[in-house]
Amino acid sequence: MSDFSQPFAAARADGSNPSAFETLGEGGHPVLGALYEVPARQGRAVQVKRGEVLTIINTYGSQVADFWAFCTADPGEHLSMEHLRPSLRKLCPTVGDALVTNRRRAILTFLSDSSKGVHDTLVASCDIHRYRDLGHSGYHDNCTDNLRMALAAIDVVLPRVPCPFNLWMNTPAHANGDMVWLPPVSQQGDAVSFRAEMDLIAVVSACPMDLLPINGADAVPRSLALSVSTAS
Amino acid sequence: MSDFSQPFAAARADGSNPSAFETLGEGGHPVLGALYEVPARQGRAVQVKRGEVLTIINTYGSQVADFWAFCTADPGEHLSMEHLRPSLRKLCPTVGDALVTNRRRAILTFLSDSSKGVHDTLVASCDIHRYRDLGHSGYHDNCTDNLRMALAAIDVVLPRVPCPFNLWMNTPAHANGDMVWLPPVSQQGDAVSFRAEMDLIAVVSACPMDLLPINGADAVPRSLALSVSTAS
Repeated sequence: MSDFSQPFAAARADGSNPSAFETLGEGGHPVLGALYEVPARQGRAVQVKRGEVLTIINTYGSQVADFWAFCTADPGEHLSMEHLRPSLRKLCPTVGDALVTNRRRAILTFLSDSSKGVHDTLVASCDIHRYRDLGHSGYHDNCTDNLRMALAAIDVVLPRVPCPFNLWMNTPAHANGDMVWLPPVSQQGDAVSFRAEMDLIAVVSACPMDLLPINGADAVPRSLALSVSTAS
Repeated sequence: MSDFSQPFAAARADGSNPSAFETLGEGGHPVLGALYEVPARQGRAVQVKRGEVLTIINTYGSQVADFWAFCTADPGEHLSMEHLRPSLRKLCPTVGDALVTNRRRAILTFLSDSSKGVHDTLVASCDIHRYRDLGHSGYHDNCTDNLRMALAAIDVVLPRVPCPFNLWMNTPAHANGDMVWLPPVSQQGDAVSFRAEMDLIAVVSACPMDLLPINGADAVPRSLALSVSTAS
């Protein structure tokens, strides 16, 4: 499978990106109500049971979260941006929306959003090829490898790399279809929350992009935080 | 793999959709310059060698073509809408653009487009779940199964169902992000052509959607045509 064939051994071997072995809780099972850090440039996977609420926090306000959700029973079914858009008949979900999988089943309900609601459904997660195209030489941390590593850390086989839901990413399309890459408009401590509509594995990558200003005008990747709680 | 687990046996068994066994040329290898029909509601796969030109023709003008391209050497690498958009920094490619894969390599160059250039990169191919959600009961021909069947017909293992490039599909997003489902603005005989930048397998499905007006105001699915030729 090509989705696996691009090695993240470089990141794993030198210890600079421990996404492949550090987990949130035992096997990614979180302590309910605990606040966990997703370190800058890294990814983490977390198990969320049906009815529980996942909250993702933009600790510094300027950080993009690449976000995925996979069905625990079959990770080949997952949150899917190309299915979500026709389901909602809009480019980006807002509070109250059901977010669907590639089988068009609701996997998450968008419960709350303290930010201005600027998120992205259009752009693939960054990968080694993206950084190469932007002029970087050698390995660069990237959200695609973070996804692979975070799932590997909890022994989940990744069936494919879906398009992520890019929380707080400000890359809108103009009326003529042209897209722009801008810093987030979110603020320190902004948070989004989702209710799990089935048992799922959520993955969050604190995007390591430092060659474009999507993680703030200073292009400095920072950490995020997340928690899983029982329904209120 | 979930991408395979949804059976198309119903379509195969009653012979109403022969996409799983009818091929364009031997094993999908076309006679160069020959004009092939993609029958209404069906899908076909065709082998295109690097440097050859694939032309897709909207015979009746009102028909959407769900279009995919997979690398022959490794079908896990394929034309990818979520990688294409950031590569081009726009929602939809136009003539002259390089269309990239999920490894951000050019797989096609958009050579010509006699239509007004209204196409879609945002919407998943229709599937049995889509028709169920729209109120249809029982099996309905769909582009996702057409993709699976067309590749099965030439003995290619489908690694996943990528988001298609929906030629002539007129489902634009307004400035506020809301999307609308409209008939194509293309005309009878409109054609697009692409140069293959690597050996690839192209799949075209003549979309069987008859519950929304995307295949014309009369919502009647019709056939398409295609040809493969040497570079001019």
